[in-house]
Amino acid sequence: MLNKKRIINIVGLLVIIEGFFLLICLIPSLVYGDGDFPALSVSAVIIFAVGLAAWFFTRDADKSVGKREGFIIVVLVWLIFSLFGSLPFRIGGHIPTYTDAFFETISGFTTTGATILEDIEGLPRGLLFWRSLTQWMGGMGIIVLSLAILPLLGVGGMQLFVAEVPGPTKEKLHPRVKETAKRLWGIYMIFTLMQIILLMLGGMDLFDAVCHSFTTMATGGYSTKQDSIAFFDSPYIQYVIILFMFIAGTNFVLSYFALRLRFDKIWKNEEFRFYSFLVLFFTGVIAAGLFITKQYGYEESLRTAAFQVVSVITTTGFITSDYMIWAPQLTILIIMLMFFGGSAGSTGGGIKIMRILLILKNTYLETKRLIYPNAVIPVKLNRHNVSQAIMGKIMAFVFIYIAIIAVSMALISLMDYEMDTSLGAAAACLGNIGPGIGLVGPVEHYAHFPVKGKWFLSFLMMLGRLELFTVLVLFAPSFWKK
Amino acid sequence: MLNKKRIINIVGLLVIIEGFFLLICLIPSLVYGDGDFPALSVSAVIIFAVGLAAWFFTRDADKSVGKREGFIIVVLVWLIFSLFGSLPFRIGGHIPTYTDAFFETISGFTTTGATILEDIEGLPRGLLFWRSLTQWMGGMGIIVLSLAILPLLGVGGMQLFVAEVPGPTKEKLHPRVKETAKRLWGIYMIFTLMQIILLMLGGMDLFDAVCHSFTTMATGGYSTKQDSIAFFDSPYIQYVIILFMFIAGTNFVLSYFALRLRFDKIWKNEEFRFYSFLVLFFTGVIAAGLFITKQYGYEESLRTAAFQVVSVITTTGFITSDYMIWAPQLTILIIMLMFFGGSAGSTGGGIKIMRILLILKNTYLETKRLIYPNAVIPVKLNRHNVSQAIMGKIMAFVFIYIAIIAVSMALISLMDYEMDTSLGAAAACLGNIGPGIGLVGPVEHYAHFPVKGKWFLSFLMMLGRLELFTVLVLFAPSFWKK
Repeated sequence: MLNKKRIINIVGLLVIIEGFFLLICLIPSLVYGDGDFPALSVSAVIIFAVGLAAWFFTRDADKSVGKREGFIIVVLVWLIFSLFGSLPFRIGGHIPTYTDAFFETISGFTTTGATILEDIEGLPRGLLFWRSLTQWMGGMGIIVLSLAILPLLGVGGMQLFVAEVPGPTKEKLHPRVKETAKRLWGIYMIFTLMQIILLMLGGMDLFDAVCHSFTTMATGGYSTKQDSIAFFDSPYIQYVIILFMFIAGTNFVLSYFALRLRFDKIWKNEEFRFYSFLVLFFTGVIAAGLFITKQYGYEESLRTAAFQVVSVITTTGFITSDYMIWAPQLTILIIMLMFFGGSAGSTGGGIKIMRILLILKNTYLETKRLIYPNAVIPVKLNRHNVSQAIMGKIMAFVFIYIAIIAVSMALISLMDYEMDTSLGAAAACLGNIGPGIGLVGPVEHYAHFPVKGKWFLSFLMMLGRLELFTVLVLFAPSFWKK
Repeated sequence: MLNKKRIINIVGLLVIIEGFFLLICLIPSLVYGDGDFPALSVSAVIIFAVGLAAWFFTRDADKSVGKREGFIIVVLVWLIFSLFGSLPFRIGGHIPTYTDAFFETISGFTTTGATILEDIEGLPRGLLFWRSLTQWMGGMGIIVLSLAILPLLGVGGMQLFVAEVPGPTKEKLHPRVKETAKRLWGIYMIFTLMQIILLMLGGMDLFDAVCHSFTTMATGGYSTKQDSIAFFDSPYIQYVIILFMFIAGTNFVLSYFALRLRFDKIWKNEEFRFYSFLVLFFTGVIAAGLFITKQYGYEESLRTAAFQVVSVITTTGFITSDYMIWAPQLTILIIMLMFFGGSAGSTGGGIKIMRILLILKNTYLETKRLIYPNAVIPVKLNRHNVSQAIMGKIMAFVFIYIAIIAVSMALISLMDYEMDTSLGAAAACLGNIGPGIGLVGPVEHYAHFPVKGKWFLSFLMMLGRLELFTVLVLFAPSFWKK
């Protein structure tokens, strides 16, 4: 029997926590007085009331939760946070429809960064703060999810990189999640703070520095400015953001080692090496391309290339240059990057660099296996063998990922969009990037989608954020049997 | 030690056979007197001379050939057949450059059907016959390759569907290949003959009927008409071609059973069922779309949809309607079909329906494995378990396939092509389809590619036709060691 009571209890508790985060937004709301105080406070009251009720009436629930409860809780949390989190946008009428408010919120909690706003600066600053905060919370959620919860649920071969997570291993869900969360959130907060300080040193005001640091560390990409980071015409600020996007796209376990000065651990990590290689390679090629075609100077070519490459590969989605008006050869490189995604155990979305690395290795080894058909030639990662079962899971993940994009393209095109926009919206939402290509390109938005399109894309964001299987397993009839 | 002498000996022998095929073209050349007799006869002399010399001077070679020799022979045969096969086009100057002549010929032998000709009817009929014949020979080659040789070489999980190939099993390469070839070529010829007769009953003249039957059974798609099958404004002819394209896209082992009236074997075959389902499903959806958007009648909608769907899924590439000017939602369905390909053991190219079916099954089972992590849940095909090693090979195949398309798109775009053309050319050449989208769409051609582009696309055609690994293994350093 599914422990429904405990599910409601845990979700209720988490909704109460969402309420506390919402209270923080009252500070900028009061400071700036942009008129969003009623919307924020009424929303907080509703959220606390519902959360407390859910928690209170189920507080006698049996504490035992198994895997099935785990899947349901994870999916419910993202869904219910987005449902309640959209209230502040809707209650004051600052976002005109509930669909749009929900889209904007789930795009926040999934750290996607796709927006329906056509005039971002027009939103009151309390709400802009909430919008950034949803991403930061989403990033926190995803760190715990990917490094503590999913490995226990056995999703998508994510067991692999957890071997080295600091903290007690092979224990029960609860203490392990708690311990891991504590350590990793500490790092997350340290980096966020460092970025806030560095941005302010570059002349950004406190409000913008906090909001942008929130959405950088989450690889979310919501900006408080319509022109995204291009607004801040400062190379220094762009370099700071490049650095922190890169960090946010790195496995947080490695960041933990970095803060303890164990750099040997980092450089020996194959995923990190491949991630660094990809960033350097694509930056180099695109910088050369921009230098030739756009007549930019050396520094500007390099910075513009690095910014867009790191922003897309980490699935952040900040923009300093519209890559749709680059030479098509350079644009196509950016499109390729949309499929990579951040490192496993980072806040980045997409397929994830580790999966791509393992598939590349396995593919290369297939030719070896062809030549020596009787030899057992396993894929190795960081000197450990990767089992065939895990390789199978990883390959299945990538196939589903590609299949979902193909089917989504067809469905989106049925809403009268061209192929480029269909691909862009599907890849950017499933990959939690935000900006795509075509009508959802870097200087565009998602407002023009029909209502059903927005709900469909919201579903894609959640699917991608929760590593596909976490959501898909709920659709398997065998999940509900027993 | 590599048995080089025997490799040369076998290839020489096969080149002699190519010469005999070329002699057949002298008949239409003489009948029509279009002025291609010198080019054809001079080419035949050169081919016989080279083939005989190669065979004669190596006739004392040790008969033993292993797997390594097998790979090399297969690749060399397609390459050398194309090199020599392009002579008739070039010697008389009917195709202006050697690059174009080679492209046209390898596109024939790989049964791709991508053409550089801008005025097909302008070519003398002896050469048009040779052009069709290259595809028919390519089809013969591919049947033996996929059903007899590749399984022995262990390429791409192709062992799977060979279990039921009629003929002696578990014997040495030579007798097995011979026996399989005999039986399957018999079927190939029977179908070709049937189609010739049926097309002539529809009013097509002997020459066109033979040429089109050659290129239908090979799923090649070369037509003797600039307007492809649209030229024959006859529903009957279109239905005949739809039927035979469908047969050509079916595993020839099943056709063998069909001719022996063992229909139970066919209907129980899961790949055939999935293939039939895909054809019916896509035909239904597209027919409905054409009915609504184009105002075609019922019959014309259905026929136009069925023709294009079967032509693309089997990788034939015949055309009766320009799918690029359909509603974009319908065009996108055709683009999706470009990745499917024919059945394993057919003359069709692409990823192959069996691989897609197995990957879909495996992907579905992953959710089951997630729910029952300790159960062993193997993929089954036609009631047999598919080993993890073979699933691994199949998945690796599809990844390389997709990776090659992605890299090719980037390389083609560097030659100043837009994204649609880059995707179209890469998918249509690697998948051995012929027409793609954009500037290589159904009413376009490949003449506009730069020289390096044509050689690159020729390489893609060979790569796709030889199931990737057969070619790629030659680039592995470990292949040449030992």
